[in-house]
Amino acid sequence: MDDDDMRRGKPSCHVVYGEAIAILAGDALQAKAFELIADAPELSANQKVQMVKVLASAAGAEGMVGGQAIDIESEGQSLTLDELRELHGLKTGALIRASVILGGIAAGASQQQLDALDRFADQIGLAFQVVDDALDVEGSTEALGKTQGKDQDADKATYVKLLGLEGAKAEAQNLLASALEALESFGSHADELRELAHFIVSRDR
Amino acid sequence: MDDDDMRRGKPSCHVVYGEAIAILAGDALQAKAFELIADAPELSANQKVQMVKVLASAAGAEGMVGGQAIDIESEGQSLTLDELRELHGLKTGALIRASVILGGIAAGASQQQLDALDRFADQIGLAFQVVDDALDVEGSTEALGKTQGKDQDADKATYVKLLGLEGAKAEAQNLLASALEALESFGSHADELRELAHFIVSRDR
Repeated sequence: MDDDDMRRGKPSCHVVYGEAIAILAGDALQAKAFELIADAPELSANQKVQMVKVLASAAGAEGMVGGQAIDIESEGQSLTLDELRELHGLKTGALIRASVILGGIAAGASQQQLDALDRFADQIGLAFQVVDDALDVEGSTEALGKTQGKDQDADKATYVKLLGLEGAKAEAQNLLASALEALESFGSHADELRELAHFIVSRDR
Repeated sequence: MDDDDMRRGKPSCHVVYGEAIAILAGDALQAKAFELIADAPELSANQKVQMVKVLASAAGAEGMVGGQAIDIESEGQSLTLDELRELHGLKTGALIRASVILGGIAAGASQQQLDALDRFADQIGLAFQVVDDALDVEGSTEALGKTQGKDQDADKATYVKLLGLEGAKAEAQNLLASALEALESFGSHADELRELAHFIVSRDR
C-alpha cells in the first residue's frame, strides 16, 4: 500500500485518523463511487451498468489492486521497462483510463470514440507516472506535498532509473504526442482533455 | 478492523500474506462484487442498477463501513442495548439484508415482497450477532475456528453483557420468531430462508 505520511502538503489520512479508520475510508469511498453511478440522473440503466463494469474492472484485481500487489511483490527486484509499464498500466493507468471512459459513456460516445479515448488515457496514464518518477528526483518535498526521494530510497524500479532523467523527460513528451494524436477526430470538443494532457506533463508537483 | 488471527479454523489472510496484501484482497473482492452484478446474465439493466445501489449502500459509510467505524470508536465505552443494535444493524446487518434483498430483486420480487424480505433479514442479522456473542462466551476456540473470549477481553459491548447469557439466548429465539413471521406470505417458496434462520440461531460455531 502507498503509505506516504504526506499528501498534497498535508498529513495523510492514516497519520491523522489511524490505520483502521483510513482503511475504512478507502472501503467507503469505493462503495460510494458505485452508488454515485447507480444514482446518477440523466443516464440510462444500460449506461450505468456499462460504467459499473468499467469501474469495477479498473479498480479490482485486474486493475489498480493488481498493480498495487505487483508493486509490493516486486519491491527490491529490478524490473524491465516492459514490466514497469505493465505495473503502472494497472496500478495508476487503469483508473485514469476508466475515468476518461466513464465520461465518454456518460456522453453517449460510440465504440470507436471510446476506443480513441482509451488510447488517449492509456498514454497520459503512463506519462503521469513517468513525470511522477522525474519529480521524485527533481522536485522538492515542499512543492510535491509528499516525501521527495521516497522511490529511490525504497529501491523501487522507476523510469528514471531505467531511462535516465533526460530519457524519462523525452519519454513523457513522446507519450504526450501520441495522447494528443488519439484525440484528433474529436476536434475542439476534446480541448479540455488536451489541456489535461499538457498539465500532466508540465506539472511541477 | 476485525483482525482476529484465525477464521474458520485457519490462519487469517493477513497472518499468511501480510497486512498490505490482505487489505488489497478486500478491495479487490469489493470491486469484484459489483463486476459480478454488472456481468450477471438474465438480469435486466434496471435490476442490475437497483442491485448495485443496494449493495453499495449496504457496504459503505451508511452500512458495514459505518458500523465498523462506530465499533472501533466505541471500544472501551459502555453502549446501551439500542446503541448496540444500531451498531450491529450497520456492521453485520446491512450486508446480510443486502444479500437477501439482492436475491429478491434477481427473482423479480414486488416492492411489498422486498419489504417483507428486508424485515426477515433485519431480524436474522440481529440474531446472528446475538448468537455470536453467546458463542464467544460458551463456545470453544476449537469449535469456533476463531479465538474464543475475544470480545470479553477487548472490553466490547455485547448482548451477553447487556442481557446475560440466558437473556441473549431468549432474545435470539424472539428474533427467530419474528423473522419467520415476516416470511408468512411466501408459503413454501421461502423454506430455504426458514432453514437459514434456524441454522443461524442453532449453530454452535
